[in-house]
Order: sequence, then C-alpha cells, then structure tokens
Amino acid sequence: MYSFMNDYSEGAHPAVLELLMKSNLEQNAGYGEDIHTAKAKEAIKKLLHKDNVDIHFIPGGTQTNLLVISSFLRPFQCVIAAETGHINVHETGAIEATGHKVVAMPCFDGKLTPAVIQSALDHHTDEHMVQPKMVYISNSTELGTIYTKAELSALHNICKEKGLILFMDGARMGSALTSKENDLELRDIAELVDVFYIGGTKNGALLGEALIICKDELKEDFRYLIKQRGALMAKGFVVGIQFEALFETNLFFELGAHANRMAEQIADTLKENGYPFFAPVGTNQLFPILPDEAIGKLEKEFIFSLQKKVDETHSAVRFVTSWATTQKSVDALCEFLRGIK
Amino acid sequence: MYSFMNDYSEGAHPAVLELLMKSNLEQNAGYGEDIHTAKAKEAIKKLLHKDNVDIHFIPGGTQTNLLVISSFLRPFQCVIAAETGHINVHETGAIEATGHKVVAMPCFDGKLTPAVIQSALDHHTDEHMVQPKMVYISNSTELGTIYTKAELSALHNICKEKGLILFMDGARMGSALTSKENDLELRDIAELVDVFYIGGTKNGALLGEALIICKDELKEDFRYLIKQRGALMAKGFVVGIQFEALFETNLFFELGAHANRMAEQIADTLKENGYPFFAPVGTNQLFPILPDEAIGKLEKEFIFSLQKKVDETHSAVRFVTSWATTQKSVDALCEFLRGIK
Amino acid sequence: MYSFMNDYSEGAHPAVLELLMKSNLEQNAGYGEDIHTAKAKEAIKKLLHKDNVDIHFIPGGTQTNLLVISSFLRPFQCVIAAETGHINVHETGAIEATGHKVVAMPCFDGKLTPAVIQSALDHHTDEHMVQPKMVYISNSTELGTIYTKAELSALHNICKEKGLILFMDGARMGSALTSKENDLELRDIAELVDVFYIGGTKNGALLGEALIICKDELKEDFRYLIKQRGALMAKGFVVGIQFEALFETNLFFELGAHANRMAEQIADTLKENGYPFFAPVGTNQLFPILPDEAIGKLEKEFIFSLQKKVDETHSAVRFVTSWATTQKSVDALCEFLRGIK
Amino acid sequence: MYSFMNDYSEGAHPAVLELLMKSNLEQNAGYGEDIHTAKAKEAIKKLLHKDNVDIHFIPGGTQTNLLVISSFLRPFQCVIAAETGHINVHETGAIEATGHKVVAMPCFDGKLTPAVIQSALDHHTDEHMVQPKMVYISNSTELGTIYTKAELSALHNICKEKGLILFMDGARMGSALTSKENDLELRDIAELVDVFYIGGTKNGALLGEALIICKDELKEDFRYLIKQRGALMAKGFVVGIQFEALFETNLFFELGAHANRMAEQIADTLKENGYPFFAPVGTNQLFPILPDEAIGKLEKEFIFSLQKKVDETHSAVRFVTSWATTQKSVDALCEFLRGIK
Repeated sequence: MYSFMNDYSEGAHPAVLELLMKSNLEQNAGYGEDIHTAKAKEAIKKLLHKDNVDIHFIPGGTQTNLLVISSFLRPFQCVIAAETGHINVHETGAIEATGHKVVAMPCFDGKLTPAVIQSALDHHTDEHMVQPKMVYISNSTELGTIYTKAELSALHNICKEKGLILFMDGARMGSALTSKENDLELRDIAELVDVFYIGGTKNGALLGEALIICKDELKEDFRYLIKQRGALMAKGFVVGIQFEALFETNLFFELGAHANRMAEQIADTLKENGYPFFAPVGTNQLFPILPDEAIGKLEKEFIFSLQKKVDETHSAVRFVTSWATTQKSVDALCEFLRGIK
Repeated sequence: MYSFMNDYSEGAHPAVLELLMKSNLEQNAGYGEDIHTAKAKEAIKKLLHKDNVDIHFIPGGTQTNLLVISSFLRPFQCVIAAETGHINVHETGAIEATGHKVVAMPCFDGKLTPAVIQSALDHHTDEHMVQPKMVYISNSTELGTIYTKAELSALHNICKEKGLILFMDGARMGSALTSKENDLELRDIAELVDVFYIGGTKNGALLGEALIICKDELKEDFRYLIKQRGALMAKGFVVGIQFEALFETNLFFELGAHANRMAEQIADTLKENGYPFFAPVGTNQLFPILPDEAIGKLEKEFIFSLQKKVDETHSAVRFVTSWATTQKSVDALCEFLRGIK
Repeated sequence: MYSFMNDYSEGAHPAVLELLMKSNLEQNAGYGEDIHTAKAKEAIKKLLHKDNVDIHFIPGGTQTNLLVISSFLRPFQCVIAAETGHINVHETGAIEATGHKVVAMPCFDGKLTPAVIQSALDHHTDEHMVQPKMVYISNSTELGTIYTKAELSALHNICKEKGLILFMDGARMGSALTSKENDLELRDIAELVDVFYIGGTKNGALLGEALIICKDELKEDFRYLIKQRGALMAKGFVVGIQFEALFETNLFFELGAHANRMAEQIADTLKENGYPFFAPVGTNQLFPILPDEAIGKLEKEFIFSLQKKVDETHSAVRFVTSWATTQKSVDALCEFLRGIK
Repeated sequence: MYSFMNDYSEGAHPAVLELLMKSNLEQNAGYGEDIHTAKAKEAIKKLLHKDNVDIHFIPGGTQTNLLVISSFLRPFQCVIAAETGHINVHETGAIEATGHKVVAMPCFDGKLTPAVIQSALDHHTDEHMVQPKMVYISNSTELGTIYTKAELSALHNICKEKGLILFMDGARMGSALTSKENDLELRDIAELVDVFYIGGTKNGALLGEALIICKDELKEDFRYLIKQRGALMAKGFVVGIQFEALFETNLFFELGAHANRMAEQIADTLKENGYPFFAPVGTNQLFPILPDEAIGKLEKEFIFSLQKKVDETHSAVRFVTSWATTQKSVDALCEFLRGIK
C-alpha cells in the first residue's frame, strides 16, 4: 500500500546518500567543526546574501524548537503560537519541559496575524502573568498554508515594535518556498525574522535541520545550549554533508518543487471532483473533506491520516507528498479518487 | 595528519551504509515503528537471551543519559556518578538542566565501588539533602577501564539492597565487551543492571544508541519521554537499519575487537619503550604519560588530545582507536613512538 | 479609602495573633516538626473524620500549586484546568516552570465538568501529545462559584475511572464552605479528591495553606519536595500556630461566614438596584456589571478591581470581602451603590 | 531542655511582633507594594548609603538562593560554591531543580578564595562543560566564619575581571556584621558584591530575607521571577513590617550582637577548659570538639547537633545562639561544660 502519511517515509535523496558514501572514510573533526559543515554553511549564507548569521545543524525539529525557545527566553517569558502550532499540540510538552508557557492563540488557517499577537499582549499586563517575548510561526504551517511577504513583514513590524523575537519553524520550508503562491525568498526571511530553520528531514535528508540565527544578541554561546540539550552530534559532519549536498546545487528547491507538483495533481483531481478543502491548497499537505464512506474505501488502498471529523458523514483527511513521491502512486491515488465519486 | 583524537571521526562501517542504501527508497513507518527497527530489536534481544526488555533507539549519548536520568527519578532524587563520569564533566550540565543533582564521588580508574556508593548514601540522610536513587556507571569508562563480572555483581547487589536503579552508559560497550580483560556478556549485563545502552555512534554507526530497559517498572510510557526530549526521530528507521546491520551478524563485536587490536599494538609499543600509563590499558582508549617534548613532536604528525599535566615535564595524552583505524596509521604511530624515545 | 480589592489586605485575625504572641518565646523544633503544628494537624484531621491523611503547611498558594503539580506528575504529564483557573492565568507560568503543560479548557462560571474533562482526554491520544494525569479545580473558583457535592462526586468518578489525580485549590475554601449554596463538608472533600488545600492567607492568617494529601500513593517523601521548592520554613511553627488558632475552635468557619455575610449585603443592594452579575453570587467575591460612568464615581471612594469590559458602556468589576471587612464599610458601599443608580 | 540547636527556635523579637500587632487591621496593598515595605526599603538603603539598588523581601533562604541563581544565569551556566555551601549540601537540590549545576570547590573554613575560583575556571574551558558565571558565598559561612574586607575585595576583583556575578547569602548577616572580627559594613558589601541578602528569619523576624540587587543589569523584571517561584507573598506587608521594625532603629544589629555575646561566653568557657574547635570562633555558631562521652552527658541536658566525627573518641558538635538566647541558659551550659571536664 502506498503511503501519503507524511513526508518522512523514505531515506535520503540519492545525491545526498552519494555524498555520504563518498566522504565516509574521511577523518572529520567532531561536533560540527568539520569542513563539510563549513561548506554547507557557506552555501546557505550565499543564498541568504548575508554573512553575519550563525548557522547550526540540529538533528531534529522538536530539538530545534525547544532549543530556540529555551535559549532565548528568561524563565518568566512565554512564546505566542497559533493554537494549531506544532509546539502547542504535537511535541508532548517539550517546550513546557524547558520551563516556558506556550500561549496558544486562535488562528485562521494556521497563521498568526499582528492583531492576534496584539491580543495576546493585551492579556498579559503585569508580573502576575507570563511575559510574551517570542512569536513562533511555521512556514509552511501545520495546515499547509504559507506566509506571504506582506504578512511576514507585518509580523516583523509588530515584533520589532513590541520587542518580541520572531521565530520561524521551517520544518517544511522546502515546500513553502517552492509553492506557486510563495513570494518569499530565503534572503527575505533572513531579513524579516530573528531566527529560523530550514528543514532537511522532510526534504531529502536522513535527518537534520539548519538553524539560522540572524539577530546578533541571540548568537552568543549557542553551542553550549546545543550541547546541553543533547543536540550536538559527535558526528556532526553526518548532517553537514547532507546539507552540503542539498545546497551546493539547487537540489533542496527541486525536491520541494517536486513534492508540490505531486500534491497539485492530487488537489486538481479533488477539485475537479468537487471535494471541498479544510485548508487552502498550495504546498505538500492537502486536507480534502471526503465522505466517510469514501475514506473507508481509500484506507484499503492507501495510507494517510484522518485530520478531523467535520460533520455526521464527512471528515477532513491529510495527504502528504514528498521529494520521493512517485508519479505512479499519484496517478493511482487520482484514479481512485475519481472512481469513488 | 592521522587522527587518534576520538572514535567518531569517520562515517559508518560500509556494511551499515550499504543497508541504508539498499532500503533507502522503501516507505517505512515513522518514529521507530518500522520493520527494520523491529528486526534490530529482535537481534539484540536474542543476544540478551531475554524477551522481556524494552529497546528504544536514541540519536545520541547525551540525550540517552539525560532521558534515562530524568525519566526515572522523582524531582528530589539524585544520581551517583564517578567524578570522572561523562555526565558529571562533559555534558554541559545536561543532567542538571533536567532538574537533578549529580553527586560526584572520588573514584579509582573511573570506576565506582559498593564502598563509594555506601559513602554517598551515608552523606544523604534526610529531606534537607537530595535523595540518592540511581547509580550511573560507564563501561568502558572515561578512562578506558572496564567492569568485571564480579565488580558489576557487587554493584548490582548494593543497588538492589538499597533500592537504587543501576544504569550503565555503554557508549563504548563495543570496545568493553571485546576487551581481553572482559568477562561480561551482554546477557550478563541485562541481568545485572536495570537499564543500559549499547553505543552505535562510536562503533560503526553514523549515529544512534540502543537503550535497553530491563526493569519492568521503568518501561511504562517511555516513548512519551523520548518524544518530549526531542529524541523521537521522524525517520527512526535510519537508526534502526544501522543497528540491524550491526547486530544481525557479528559485526558489532568485530568492530570493537578491531579497535582494541589497534590500541593494543600502540600500547605494546609504549610499554616496550618504557612509557607509564595514567590508566590501565585494555580497551580502545590509551592514556600514556609522555615527556612534554615528545608530545610537541607528536603533535606535528598526529592528532590526539592532552589528558592532564602530571608533572613539570610530563603529561598524560589520550590516543583513541576505532573500527576505522587503519593498520598503516597504527604502524606510523608506533614507529614514531619508537623514534622519539 | 476603603478597599474591596481583595481578601488579603489586613494582617491576621486577633485570636491568631494572640496565639503567636503567647507562644513567641517558646523554643520550638524547626521545619514544622513542632507541637503546635502537630496540634493544628490533629484539629484538621478531626474535622475530616480521617486519620490517614498527610498534612503539610505551605507558606503560599502558588507554592502549594506548583508543589502538588510538579510532585505528582511524570515529566510528560499535564494538568487539566479551567481556562480561568489561577494556575493558567495568574501564576506567571509557575507550573510550566516546573516542566508541565497546563491544558486549559473552556468552562462555565469557572468550573470544570466531566464532559469538559472527557473532551480534554479525547484530544490527547498518543505519545506525540502530553498525557493528562491531573485535574485542577478551585473551590471557590476564581469567579466566586462553588462546587456542589453532586458536581464534585461526578468529577471524582471520572477521575477515578480515567486514572486522573483530582486536586482542589482551596485558597478560598473558608468562603466556599460557609456559602449558603454549599452542601459540602471538609470530610466530603477529603473523600472525593486526592489532594486539596485549605487556605489560611485569605481567611485569617498572616500566611499559610494547609495541604492535605488523601491518596496514599502520593504521600511518600513529600517533605523532600517541599524543601526543594523552598517551601519548608525554618520557623514552620509560625504557620502551625496560626492554623492551631483557626481550627482548635470554629474560628476558621466563622471568618468565612463573616466574609460571605458582608458580600451578601452588597449583593442584595446590587440586586435591588437592578444590576446584573457577570458570575453567580454566593461567596466573598462579587462580579456586578456596572455602567462605566458609575464605576468612575465609585473609584473615587472605594478601591476594587476591574474584571472585564462587557460592552461599550458597561464593565464587570470585582468586590471582595474578607474576615476583616467592617459593617461600616459595607454600609458605605451599599449607600453609594444606591446613590449612583 | 534548652536548645542550642539553631537560631530559629523562637518567634520574633517582641518589638517586631509589636509593630505587626499595631498595624494588623490597617488595609495594605498586596504583593509588597505597601507603605511598610517601602519604609523598610528606605531604612536599608540609608544604611547602604545607596539609592540605586532594588530591594525585594522574600519569605525564606532557599527561595532566595534559587531565585537569584536561576534568574541571573543562562541555562548552561553554573554557580561556583564552597563544597560546604548551603546550596551544595542542604537544599535538596533546589538549585539543580532550576536547571543549574553547582560546581562545588574544596575550601578552607567554608570560604572561597580567588585561587579556588581560578581553579574552577581553569577546569571549564569549552562548550562541552558548564560555563561558570556566578560565585556564591555565605557570610557568615556554614562554619561560622566571616569574610574580611580584604578577602571580599579580592573576590570582587576576580569576579569583575572574569565577568562573574558575586552573590552573598546573608542568612546570618546579623551575626557576621556584629562579630568582633568583622571589618565590613553593609555599605561595603553593597559596593563589593552584585547581589546579596540580609537574613531576617535567623535574626529576629518570624520569616523573611531582604534581597538587595546592586548591579543594574540584574534588576529588570525581577518581580516576575519572584512570582513565578511562589515567593511573591499576597500579604507582603507581613515581611515588610518586620524589616521596618528591625531597621528603623538599630535593632537588627543589637540582636546579632547579643547572639555573638552569648556565643562568646560559651566559647571562652570551652577555651578555658582546653577544648579545641573544628572551625574558628567569631559568630553565633560554635563547633567545639568534645569527647564522645561528654557529648553523651550533654545530650541529656541540652539540645544541639552533631557536626562530624573527628576521631575514634571525639566529635565536633554545633552550638548555635540567637537573639533570643538567654543568659540563664548560657550560664547553665557553661557550668555544665566546666563540670564534664
């Protein structure tokens, strides 16, 4: 059975594996102080058109999120997130385990707005309440939506005005930046947020996220924090080499674009057959609303997840595509979707 | 320049990489619920002659240590460790960051004894002090020494008597179990400790440690804890596949034995030339005491670390061998060591 | 200006101070191991008709809340609370600072119900989310409402069925238990919850809360936890003596009843003059909705707090009475309220 | 039986209680924002000859210690303390529970020196180890010794040079500052350390410590931190009034001097009778070494604590005097000590 369950079912893109193979018996310095990691950083900085950023490679997304949040907040400060945000729902309290409250705000399509942030600030006024100091957004979001340049600029402005750190979780940055709806480049993001990461795990690597600290005040001693949270890999070069492979060519973006193209074909089929969507289409996550009966049939042929019951007889499901999704499997899914109509 | 700096300078053993390649485009379940991880667990259980253990694969050693300690202690409880223990010295306070004191005890050759544990218990008597509840040992230790079956049994006994959890850090278990001095098998360890791990990072894998929970009371809900600390990899199969490769054959032990053979040759050369050792020889870490002048010359040809100044003109250094250490590099080092005499 | 701001504006009831005076130069054992603390515990146990409870006196409410929650949960477990709950809003993230998420649920009049708890459970299904393990309720609630015996029994039942610890914050227990609407006795509470506390700070003491642990499994080593959080007072007898004074006679209940009588007079006046209430009347906290213009006038004569804007021209305010509230001040407020009509 | 167990066996000095009585029915603002607290702060600032300090009243010593340490350190930073320091031994891991390692250093008579601090720095060199950022000292120390102005200046200098925060635990500041050996005034301390506290609990108050933050960078938002740790008392005025009573006159110093005079008489008797001491005499804690047989007899008449076995037949004991110690009890103890010779 073909799986549209998530974008981390396969290993690494062959070009990534190849570079791992090629460098396998080299002796490299430990803890990310090797030459491949250095090359990967240079390649990313070139894309950012910025040299004065600090880049660290972190094994996974939860670690990156908890590291950023716990490192930059004082004990009484909190992070504002959309109620659908990954840190609020799907990290088993990883953020709270570092001592910080996640202030979850109602949101539309998984996105935060200046008005929502202002509302959070308005409710936290004195020392009897936590103090908002960071804003967490994801791009693409947990609902597959993306931030436009105008939207991100507006978030940048309110954060700057209010002294809030703006943090973008880019676990699915590859799909976000190659969406047809997207008007952001990596270099824009580096100007508009204080810290963000580019996800490798969900876009062609075995594991690894590239954390980019743009704001000078946040840079100091960050390696101590990585080490303390267990995220400083002895063989740091294992992630460095993979990002080298992804960013020395255009590979990272090609992989995101492939995932989006695969999703688009599925979305088009769904639309043609009149299925509504629980969240806007644009990246590699699709949330169509299907009759429960059809879902029952689909489950016999494909693997995917249920998102939410929407009424007595319908539910939203989630289909995820990836760099590894095959045309053949998409064709099969589309054909099936046409058939169950 | 050849490096004897550590045992994590190279990637993975070719057989490990090969299995990663072979399975690369399979679709696997996420979060370690895949078939390769299941096979790796079975292979390890077979070696343990035990089925009633829980096995979890964790990306790295610091994470494994902090996970075990923070998961099994109540907030006021502490862990007893040798003052040279990795958790006391080289983890940037990772254990304390989870809220627990490490009670560091003086030790001989990096090892704890029942008498030392009793002394720690004697100094912690009431609710104004932390309560000892766990004993942390490493095998091999940070000084390259190993526990004998008799020593480990004695630790087992005092821990059982006093209600202490016995935890063995096996980051270098491969070298320990294949040491000439060793009389422990994995199955003995599984009987004598409550929880331990088998290190992959330092013995042929790109990353990963196999955590084995032997004591029933410690098993419940452990995956929640892994997830919360950021150690539940989306592509858990990446580690599962590697342990499958290491344990479906005898590879894991062959790699440890190779590292030990390489170290033994260096040790023999050192002994022949009359150099004393800072700690007993037996595994893949050697701590010879050399004249500072000789060290100066060595540094121009080889990479290794300084352990400690021992007198005005001598220092202990550390040479580490691994599964990847070449005969050629060992020959070169031995020749050099003979020459500087 | 007379203050209806809160119920902790004055010192201690004179009978409490008198016992402190009387015993002042006695030599007492430290850390709550004195004879007065023992007597206070006995008096409370007598009221509970239970001997097999553990009682600890804690300096304040935030400390008591964070102690209970952090002591009884494993790291990945969370506490369910009403979104208006003190631990969710007004403790500056004290609970999260101990590592635990507060899962805040929508509520009616500040109270939780079995259905709301079930809904929280339904949303937390696996190891990617925190695991609900405790239910926090306050009695009286932050909105001045109280739980009936039937309501508390229903909470007891679902908690027992689902393996949840039921914890009642009784910072305002004095007022709750002497409300006209109340049908609970202390002994009922001790049967229906697993752990609760009886607030002294807001009902006649200078400081101090009596924490009562009913469930056997929660009792072990609790004094270690108190000490670690900085809540084991060297002069523990200072709180013990005060609870002795409050509970050796009926004083504690008389003080709560006085506060309620004072509030009732104000409530009656408000009702007579047609003012609606933001939350039901019954204890020592009143939340009338007044025209903003009237509030402006009131602020010149009395001290109280604004609760919430309810429409363009009206707001809910909060009046709080206490054991120390004088008839004269209540008369003055009532007269004023009649006048501004 | 008279107790020389500690300096917190009695309630408050009568003048302190009297002011509590006098102000008992006043309505005061909550959370330390009252007029008495303001007066107490003014009185202390006058003694410091400094206006630009922030003063906060905290209920107890453990809370003050954990608050200071956890508030001013980043997650990977540690505090250096003497191995006998209260935070290392007698706080049930309260500091580690906030996430920070206490680096315990060998010491002489309970005191740290620049050389010891330098040694701690020398052992912490990179991101694989915690980073020292604070130095904790107590005055008087846990062994009853005090810092001279020259010693404190030397600590000030090394801390300034190395960028370390110097924190003085003054739980027994009253006895320290009135010791015959003392050459420090409060105003000197305020110049030489970054943050310190003046203990009320052990010098005439029912409870409470005055925390003084001297360094500007440490002041911001400190009330949030107090609240989060459960140390912001609703009736903050209860501590404020007591410090008002202690500092509006010379009372605080008179009480310390009395305790010292009582201790001196006991020390003189011990010296006259040829008993050696485990630690130098000077403040209200005495550590004479007595024959175990004599200790056995003493225990039938007086309450005190055993400090340490020193040889087969002798032990060090601890006698503590306080503001409340009576001449009569001292006479009785001295007579007894002469008799058992």
